[in-house]
Amino acid sequence: MATDYRPMWTKLGLDLEAHDALLEVLGNMYQTTYLSQKNRPKGMGYLDFVMGEVHGLRIQELENAKAQGRKVIGTFCVFVPDELIIAADAISVGLCAGAEFGFEDAEKLLPRNTCSLIKSFFGFKLNKVCPYIEASNMIVGETTCDGKKKAYEIFKGIQPNLYIMEVPQMKNAADRELLKSEFIRFKNELKNLTEVTIDAARLKKGIDTVNNRRKALYRLASLRASDPAPISGLDALLINQVAFYDNPVRFTESVNKLCDELEQRVRDGEGVFPKGTPRVLVAGCPMAVPNWKLPAIIETSGAVIVGEESCVGERGTQNLVDDSGTTGEALMNAIVDRYFKIDCAIFTPNESRLTHISEMAKKYNADGVVHYALQFCSPYSVESYQVEQALLKEGIPSTRIETDYSQEDLGQLQTRIEAFIETLKS
Amino acid sequence: MATDYRPMWTKLGLDLEAHDALLEVLGNMYQTTYLSQKNRPKGMGYLDFVMGEVHGLRIQELENAKAQGRKVIGTFCVFVPDELIIAADAISVGLCAGAEFGFEDAEKLLPRNTCSLIKSFFGFKLNKVCPYIEASNMIVGETTCDGKKKAYEIFKGIQPNLYIMEVPQMKNAADRELLKSEFIRFKNELKNLTEVTIDAARLKKGIDTVNNRRKALYRLASLRASDPAPISGLDALLINQVAFYDNPVRFTESVNKLCDELEQRVRDGEGVFPKGTPRVLVAGCPMAVPNWKLPAIIETSGAVIVGEESCVGERGTQNLVDDSGTTGEALMNAIVDRYFKIDCAIFTPNESRLTHISEMAKKYNADGVVHYALQFCSPYSVESYQVEQALLKEGIPSTRIETDYSQEDLGQLQTRIEAFIETLKS
Repeated sequence: MATDYRPMWTKLGLDLEAHDALLEVLGNMYQTTYLSQKNRPKGMGYLDFVMGEVHGLRIQELENAKAQGRKVIGTFCVFVPDELIIAADAISVGLCAGAEFGFEDAEKLLPRNTCSLIKSFFGFKLNKVCPYIEASNMIVGETTCDGKKKAYEIFKGIQPNLYIMEVPQMKNAADRELLKSEFIRFKNELKNLTEVTIDAARLKKGIDTVNNRRKALYRLASLRASDPAPISGLDALLINQVAFYDNPVRFTESVNKLCDELEQRVRDGEGVFPKGTPRVLVAGCPMAVPNWKLPAIIETSGAVIVGEESCVGERGTQNLVDDSGTTGEALMNAIVDRYFKIDCAIFTPNESRLTHISEMAKKYNADGVVHYALQFCSPYSVESYQVEQALLKEGIPSTRIETDYSQEDLGQLQTRIEAFIETLKS
Repeated sequence: MATDYRPMWTKLGLDLEAHDALLEVLGNMYQTTYLSQKNRPKGMGYLDFVMGEVHGLRIQELENAKAQGRKVIGTFCVFVPDELIIAADAISVGLCAGAEFGFEDAEKLLPRNTCSLIKSFFGFKLNKVCPYIEASNMIVGETTCDGKKKAYEIFKGIQPNLYIMEVPQMKNAADRELLKSEFIRFKNELKNLTEVTIDAARLKKGIDTVNNRRKALYRLASLRASDPAPISGLDALLINQVAFYDNPVRFTESVNKLCDELEQRVRDGEGVFPKGTPRVLVAGCPMAVPNWKLPAIIETSGAVIVGEESCVGERGTQNLVDDSGTTGEALMNAIVDRYFKIDCAIFTPNESRLTHISEMAKKYNADGVVHYALQFCSPYSVESYQVEQALLKEGIPSTRIETDYSQEDLGQLQTRIEAFIETLKS
């Protein structure tokens, strides 16, 4: 990096030594997992740049915006409506963490039987290595799973600017009412923080910005239906990960530019792997940066990933907000309607997710589905049984993987994935 | 048993061979854990009788009631309002299971990382050994924890008469609205099943019946504040367990009769253990029959249990329903208000539980608190950290135990419990 960001990191309260260690691990992982890939689209240069500056330039941008009076909102979940954050002229950044860092400290506060994602954001915070959380004016947690819901209570002791949003568990009329009242409460909280009154025009701008980002990601997703796939699953996952913290307008432009290139590739029959390579859909838990473990195993074991049914993927981006309303009330209702459709495994029943996985497998011409659950994530690990049953009925092969952020099971996972891919070839 | 219940069990679809095996295990456990206790109150004879007939006479009573047109409702959670079930002239029975039985079959449907309580009710069902579930006309599940919420989806495939009630996760106004709408939905479902219209008079009867049961249990609880304790924690736990499936009026009478005897014991300074025996409050996850593992270890390691902060205990029974209303609407609101106060660890934040544990410790003159979490129960195992911190502030010693239904960790638990009790003596 040309710029010296150390004064900024110090000001944010980071532990420079621990942070250096994290950046080195990250840099090495990125080199091994990403830069070693063959036939990458040129447009990935933008993502390489963003990743190189992930704790540098982007944090500088947030600090600059804050110096101009804007606020930064850190989030952990796709249920937090970016539309409202943008409408309040604030900046949304994703805080989910994907690396085994500081787990020993996290386990002093949390049971060992806690999923890696939760331990990771505790570890990052306790080890003072996450500039995003330190740069945030408000952190939004939510009552999605038991693990997060209860861990946030402890987290609030070390992160007092934590705000909790409730998410319902069923999809009845009373649940929509609850979600709506929670979105209104959040809107008021944003107003208190930013002193911006969110009117219809501001809501419209928020909706358009986020819808455009979604549309760019749909465009990317649809191009992956081609054989050969014009982009690797690893690169597509990275794009979905970066969507959570990059400037949304710049990000959308970059993804659309990349899609222009991929369209040309599709016309030319050019891909990242040979035509006929076994095609896999990954479904399940979100994968936060730098959790590239399972996709890297899949794509170095002779298959290509053609879609992600995940919060960091199509579960998080599917469905646009209807932008036809002209009043604040109508637009708020449209936002609630869109988020109420999210088919996270925290809902019961959650049939639409089962349907969506089958639809994605067909739409992207997948030969099989790898269901991924983080160890100790009850919602997704229990639901994986129903996913398997639903796919069986559709005649779509699937396998269920349960793992964590450690590297200990790499060999075992590789053996299982290779065996599964072998079955897809026949 | 004098009566031959085998024709009834066969009619209910039980697997007689597996059921015999279960009854034998249960009988042996009861002998070893309960009948071997010294200085038991005479009034426990009723409980010994009930336990001896737990799969016999009580099931016969349910079958007789059904023959007269009444309905049986099986429940898993203290959030299901018995008042409404009784108002509908139906019979409520608890279905939570406390034994490691059929786990191998349960694990074909559920992740291995699932708590023993959930595996147990799956195991009982899959092995056809629970006459209560087979005798039920409707089973009520609820969205309390992730494990149960998602497991019920799979359970519905083998138990189609399963109905799901949503429980909110916070205690804001919108959450009370949600709970109220769920109680109204449940009331309507009961009406559909029983063809009984629940009016104010019927509600009043339901409220009185359940309030009286609670009052008898409060009376029992308060007598345990004495030193020496007039009844063992094991026996008091059993009473709380039997409360879930015994006839509520008969049960209440029997508990009050037992309390008369215990009052005399208190006056006489008579107890189950010598005066000065270290006194322990157990807080945490519910213990369903025959989950007596931890209490048995505590009371054979030199301490007496003087209270249970648990669903099967004072968390489940605290707070009466205000019965002063005269309209159906007022009484329904009173029921909602009472259940909305339950401080289950599924709520966030859940400060009142922390306060309640300290209050119970003081009220019952406990020297220390044993917090009990079932392995893989996120709500209680995460919250155990806050419980420990809150008790530390109050200067109340505590220890955190995480275990399951297996017998494998008996030695290790005993060592830990003995060491903790030793610290209470100093």
